[in-house]
Amino acid sequence: MWYEKFGPMGDIVLSSRVRLARNIEEIPFGTKMTDNDRSLVIDKCKTALPHLKFIDLQKMESIEKLALSECHLISPEIANSTHICGLLTNDSCNLCVMLNEEDHIRIQAMCEGFDLESCLKAANDIDDKLEETVNIAFDSRFGYLTCCPTNTGTGMRASVMLHLPALSESGDMEQLIRSLSKLGFTVRGIYGEGSQALGNIYQISNQVTLGISEEETIQKLKQVINEVIEKERSVSRMTFENNKLYLEDKIMRAKGLITNARIMSSSEAMNLLSYVRWGINLGIINDINLETLSEALYQSLPANIAKKYNSATPTERDLKRSEIFRRVLVTK
Amino acid sequence: MWYEKFGPMGDIVLSSRVRLARNIEEIPFGTKMTDNDRSLVIDKCKTALPHLKFIDLQKMESIEKLALSECHLISPEIANSTHICGLLTNDSCNLCVMLNEEDHIRIQAMCEGFDLESCLKAANDIDDKLEETVNIAFDSRFGYLTCCPTNTGTGMRASVMLHLPALSESGDMEQLIRSLSKLGFTVRGIYGEGSQALGNIYQISNQVTLGISEEETIQKLKQVINEVIEKERSVSRMTFENNKLYLEDKIMRAKGLITNARIMSSSEAMNLLSYVRWGINLGIINDINLETLSEALYQSLPANIAKKYNSATPTERDLKRSEIFRRVLVTK
Repeated sequence: MWYEKFGPMGDIVLSSRVRLARNIEEIPFGTKMTDNDRSLVIDKCKTALPHLKFIDLQKMESIEKLALSECHLISPEIANSTHICGLLTNDSCNLCVMLNEEDHIRIQAMCEGFDLESCLKAANDIDDKLEETVNIAFDSRFGYLTCCPTNTGTGMRASVMLHLPALSESGDMEQLIRSLSKLGFTVRGIYGEGSQALGNIYQISNQVTLGISEEETIQKLKQVINEVIEKERSVSRMTFENNKLYLEDKIMRAKGLITNARIMSSSEAMNLLSYVRWGINLGIINDINLETLSEALYQSLPANIAKKYNSATPTERDLKRSEIFRRVLVTK
Repeated sequence: MWYEKFGPMGDIVLSSRVRLARNIEEIPFGTKMTDNDRSLVIDKCKTALPHLKFIDLQKMESIEKLALSECHLISPEIANSTHICGLLTNDSCNLCVMLNEEDHIRIQAMCEGFDLESCLKAANDIDDKLEETVNIAFDSRFGYLTCCPTNTGTGMRASVMLHLPALSESGDMEQLIRSLSKLGFTVRGIYGEGSQALGNIYQISNQVTLGISEEETIQKLKQVINEVIEKERSVSRMTFENNKLYLEDKIMRAKGLITNARIMSSSEAMNLLSYVRWGINLGIINDINLETLSEALYQSLPANIAKKYNSATPTERDLKRSEIFRRVLVTK
């Protein structure tokens, strides 16, 4: 899948994403919607975007939906929704229109690595196509109208997923999160809660959607992300230079454990994969590449395992997880 | 070296040893000895045992003596002695006569695996040879006279070094130690103190030297050791059957760590080597054999590393130790 691939700044940036929130003028918003309204949203969008494949999420197994949301293809909200809802997606799954999520329409364009412009272009193309046949709720003063006022304006949330092991290990992350928050950006751990994100994977996105254009938002976010990348690289270099032996030891122990264990929890795996990824970037590990590692990461997520292997119990999943690592990560 | 080889019952028994304490009639014992007395002991024994090589321990580097005692070739007491003392040994170092240890003469015969009879025969041969020219202190009622009364009689201590991971892990070890003690046998951890021996390696030996013959002592010890071996094997089988996955996980994690780490303390190493050894015996690990493992164990002991690599600081030793494991244990 695209999200396992190595993109621009792929040493640190896993993926980029632009999401546009849209609603249809003549249909009630959010909790006011009836099932008829929801069906209408789906019909209109299917007609407007015939080149995309429609997936009826109500007919999809719950575990399959969770697996999609673990890979960030759909939101956890729509994965858990009991309403009429659906998905329009392209073959490579890097373009995904969620129907009847919080808003009627949420266009998501994603790519591997750091390339927000391509995402914005792909999302805008879908938006333009939609507007040819669908009346999108738009106010000349406020911009796009959305269910929640925090999205009103551009309706855009641009975000970048980064792996920041050096900043996490050095303890710089909390300070960074506070600074970025003051500048109007949100930082959150992608997996797990709290300031120490599971696997040291963070998502940085814009908070503001009002009084600023899409392009300007993306320029500002790009600038901030570039600074974070530079900071991560420099702290990583410094950590390596000052504590070469100890860092090498941690990284090689992580590799030893992940390629040999027979049972492994998801949180332990995320932690070890983070060290292995760091080790690849530092040139300490040479027989695993970043794409193989991403493949291992996504394949080993709980719902993805449960879906693929029909593994019901956590122990069975922990067993399958370590099997995956030995198959994917061990060089023959 | 002989102690790295695989002998009878080598899955569990690392080595066997018989030690005979002897003293020379006309020379004062223990603390009553002068330097002249000590030199006399050495002269008499050198003359009596001309086929053995003499090593002057006072001229040997302290780190070299510690390395010999780590491999159990000489006692820690004589390694740390500041008196005139020495060693008579054969080329393969499985026969070793310590001069001016606690007693004038301590004959040690050792072998890989479980074979106390061979050890007794080798020690007796040296004893016979000695008695041809040296007056050994012997009392018709008490037997051989020794510095400490706990050795008087046969002057013999027979001991077997065993690796008992299953009994240690199951918690049966403490009970076993108490029972054996009541039967007149001593159990102690070979490396480290306390009931949980470092590396789960234990030495079982006879306590009693008075009122019992050498042969009878050895028969009794053999019987007890055979029971311990049987118990270890059966608990190991049971643990494996009942907790296959968890045991496999622990063993493979140990292998992953020991073959990948870059810094490793001696106590962590002993613990991991114990699991790897257990894994070889259970057939879980197939690409390392027991002799290779013993080689790794002895090479990685602190004084042996310090001697070989001139590594002074603990950190340097911990670094060399992990280098040794990667070189010796990783199959090319």
